[in-house]
Amino acid sequence: MASGGELINNKQVIFKNFVEGFPKESDMEVKTSSISLKVEEGSNAVVVKNLYLSCDPYMRIRMTQSDQETDDPEFIPFTPGSPLEGFGVAKVVDSGHPNYKKGDLIWGMVKWEEYSLIENPQLFKIHHADVPLSHYTGILGMPGITAWAGFYEVCSPKKGEKVYISAASGAVGQLVGQFAKLMGCYVVGSAGSKEKVDLLKNKFGFDDAFNYKEEHDLDAALKRCFPEGIDIYFENVGGKMLDAVLLNMRLRGRIAACGMISQYNLHQPEGVHNLMNIVGKRIRMEGLMAFDYFPQYEKFLDAVLPFVREKKVVYVEDIAEGIEGAPAALVGLFSGRNVGKQVVAVAKE
Amino acid sequence: MASGGELINNKQVIFKNFVEGFPKESDMEVKTSSISLKVEEGSNAVVVKNLYLSCDPYMRIRMTQSDQETDDPEFIPFTPGSPLEGFGVAKVVDSGHPNYKKGDLIWGMVKWEEYSLIENPQLFKIHHADVPLSHYTGILGMPGITAWAGFYEVCSPKKGEKVYISAASGAVGQLVGQFAKLMGCYVVGSAGSKEKVDLLKNKFGFDDAFNYKEEHDLDAALKRCFPEGIDIYFENVGGKMLDAVLLNMRLRGRIAACGMISQYNLHQPEGVHNLMNIVGKRIRMEGLMAFDYFPQYEKFLDAVLPFVREKKVVYVEDIAEGIEGAPAALVGLFSGRNVGKQVVAVAKE
Repeated sequence: MASGGELINNKQVIFKNFVEGFPKESDMEVKTSSISLKVEEGSNAVVVKNLYLSCDPYMRIRMTQSDQETDDPEFIPFTPGSPLEGFGVAKVVDSGHPNYKKGDLIWGMVKWEEYSLIENPQLFKIHHADVPLSHYTGILGMPGITAWAGFYEVCSPKKGEKVYISAASGAVGQLVGQFAKLMGCYVVGSAGSKEKVDLLKNKFGFDDAFNYKEEHDLDAALKRCFPEGIDIYFENVGGKMLDAVLLNMRLRGRIAACGMISQYNLHQPEGVHNLMNIVGKRIRMEGLMAFDYFPQYEKFLDAVLPFVREKKVVYVEDIAEGIEGAPAALVGLFSGRNVGKQVVAVAKE
Repeated sequence: MASGGELINNKQVIFKNFVEGFPKESDMEVKTSSISLKVEEGSNAVVVKNLYLSCDPYMRIRMTQSDQETDDPEFIPFTPGSPLEGFGVAKVVDSGHPNYKKGDLIWGMVKWEEYSLIENPQLFKIHHADVPLSHYTGILGMPGITAWAGFYEVCSPKKGEKVYISAASGAVGQLVGQFAKLMGCYVVGSAGSKEKVDLLKNKFGFDDAFNYKEEHDLDAALKRCFPEGIDIYFENVGGKMLDAVLLNMRLRGRIAACGMISQYNLHQPEGVHNLMNIVGKRIRMEGLMAFDYFPQYEKFLDAVLPFVREKKVVYVEDIAEGIEGAPAALVGLFSGRNVGKQVVAVAKE
């Protein structure tokens, strides 16, 4: 049954077609559609007003045509002609679902548009709004869980261990570094500009940092920062960086493979040559996806929310204002234009 | 103080010089030296008569010049002009060490020669001689511990899981496959000849097997054998094989990286391109070395000796007779000439 609600304008970011190579703004299009703000009677859907949209590197994978079947919502290819999807923070405008009511703040998978109709909603309710709501796209959302589970669970860290983080000023990396410092580790990060390297050293409290674009020899850069080698590598990059890291890992080192952003836009990923180090050094390399840890969200929040409130962990966001800027914000992830977690602010609460 | 023992002839396999590329017989030389069969008074050394020498792929790594420091005896480069070292089965001829006495059978690190003087011996005593002594270079020695720890500890196997083993008829692979069958797994192996493939299917009870040299497309071969994908990969090979396996791993698959024999003779190892699968599929890849599990040797023996005695596990050895044949036996590992575990029989007990 159709709802009785009148239709209102709804700006959307439409995914035009599948992408090869680096995504461009012109692969997306901002169009105005219309939407009813009432759910159909008897439906269990919700209608939400999107406040913040999250720009995340994994979204590039969804821009590639694929015939591989997947159960992972993070990997299902986008539908050409439809809006992009991604994590967002939103406010419930109408609900047919018993778990959500009008006025609730939520975060979870929404569409890139001003208002979204979400069937079978699986959204986290936001119970703590004393922190910036945008944080639920970052430190208190998917990247936060990734950093928390990846560091504490996958890396099995110990005080005093040497931790290296690539893409270290990004949504996940800045958190891993700060978690590692809180644990008493020696922490070095790399990033792609002087501004980001300064952030790592001065704002996030890393022990050292370098601009990978200015290093001719990544192996030498790592040997300079880690004369005794690396115990834990938080992998966000892949390719040449991973190859250099493998040469510098210590015995029984651990690599949490969270992403490989340097590879997403390549038709054929780069070859990694130094995997024999995994055998000789008994390295454990393990992939992780935030989804697997969503059932532990409350436990995560109990651990990380105090860090935020007590300012033990800071979080830098790069907020683009207005949905019209969403395509540029997303594309900018792959040239490293963003400084910190890239968010798009769509509307005020 | 010099011992009073008279000197006798001692044939040795001398490592002539560091090797690049595939090792050749001419990289070694069989020479006759002389040795006293008595240990010096006050010394804690032992003199052993070598019965069986073990040819193992990791020995290639010790043939390469390296300035990397290592604590792993398995990786310390050989000394040009001195005999090779490796695992062996031997009988104690004289002992200054309280743990060993004349007549004891032992296995452990010996030199490639008829008699070895071993300072600071760290040798396992053989208490069960009802099984072939050569087995202590294989199923009851280092390869056995590797297979046991790699499969049961690193791979965390479950009944019904799909297991793939490369170099599957080798010293380690044939055991992993049989352990996996005993656990109720579906097991496929690859090897490099029809004879070996027949062994896998008919002697070791693998569910399926293929000759990788006859497959133009390893990915297609794996898809044929594992239409639902691979849960556990026991990695002995590396390079292109690993790349094809990564495409076929299932969600939360495990890779025990035990060796990468295809890479040992290359100046620059092959690039592996499909590591992004580790992230998306949450794969855990972990290196292992038998040494780490030597403290659990008694536990291992309690588990595996009954398998041998009750013939629940069979073990195929390729025994070269006489120390003169040792260089050819070792070199043959890298062309796949051996069928089963390669051993050199030096002397009868």
